[in-house]
Amino acid sequence: MNFCSSCGAPVTIQVPEGDHLPRHVCSACRTIHYVNPKILVGAVPVWGDRILLCRRAIMPREGYWTMPSGFMENGETLQMGAARETYEESLARVTIEDLLSVINIAGHNQVHVLFRARMNGPEHGATLESSEVRLFSEHEVPWDDLAFRTVTHTLRHFFEDRCKGERGLHLVDLDTTRI
Amino acid sequence: MNFCSSCGAPVTIQVPEGDHLPRHVCSACRTIHYVNPKILVGAVPVWGDRILLCRRAIMPREGYWTMPSGFMENGETLQMGAARETYEESLARVTIEDLLSVINIAGHNQVHVLFRARMNGPEHGATLESSEVRLFSEHEVPWDDLAFRTVTHTLRHFFEDRCKGERGLHLVDLDTTRI
Repeated sequence: MNFCSSCGAPVTIQVPEGDHLPRHVCSACRTIHYVNPKILVGAVPVWGDRILLCRRAIMPREGYWTMPSGFMENGETLQMGAARETYEESLARVTIEDLLSVINIAGHNQVHVLFRARMNGPEHGATLESSEVRLFSEHEVPWDDLAFRTVTHTLRHFFEDRCKGERGLHLVDLDTTRI
Repeated sequence: MNFCSSCGAPVTIQVPEGDHLPRHVCSACRTIHYVNPKILVGAVPVWGDRILLCRRAIMPREGYWTMPSGFMENGETLQMGAARETYEESLARVTIEDLLSVINIAGHNQVHVLFRARMNGPEHGATLESSEVRLFSEHEVPWDDLAFRTVTHTLRHFFEDRCKGERGLHLVDLDTTRI
């Protein structure tokens, strides 16, 4: 950040009065520009005993598999964001159910929030973001070709819980900068 | 947002190629400036059978009571943020435990994440942000003088769960713009 998005003057980095962290502060209008972590939302869509995964058509990790997820937008709830991302990436309409995993990636300034979801119908398909979208039984999941550790953690918890007849919420810290 | 924080040129509002929402886009360097929801983190600190609340010394809702909470910072996990906010607002050192409530306030572009926490000792005290900090038994909680609906929901769930011997995670939507 070099310039004030409000008035266009240069910003400087300083600790504002009453604060304890350096912030970008405008040299002219004194606006303080805070930068905070972002939320990614997504879902594990279920149809019968199978789950829906997407093969990424975009970088990073193009060609690898993930559950649908992406950045939460202003004006929506976590559940609305998870349903929207699922449709955008897989063309599946889902009903969002309970929280499955909340994953801190402090090194990336991100929190990932994943839900269990029920597919409203079997429809799904490839999109601009997903070269292939398909349903997987547990034994078919491409564990060695998952795109991110967030996917691996979330799917592992999903199947372990299902095996035990539970619906847990898993709070996970991923402590490096690699997602 | 009027100017590009990267190069200082004016921004325009347009839907970038491949996107579906209007964004602030720089007229010169074409940087897309995304604006996303913010996370507030906090805790219900417990000492014995009492909980710690803070009387707000700042606007909004100055003079009303809240559990410690505030904006999550870059570089921290949800739990680190909740412990930091608790210390900053109440001088209490806590061990963060499990998730208590996750509250969507879509109209404010916020998600509030509250944890149960165990106080490491009985120490606590007033701060710049809290004119008074004290421990409350359930029957002493100032229900009519709580600062925000997020506080009311979270404390109600806390005490209902404790009464039942449960430790639930409560996902709540507050659907207006009033916090």
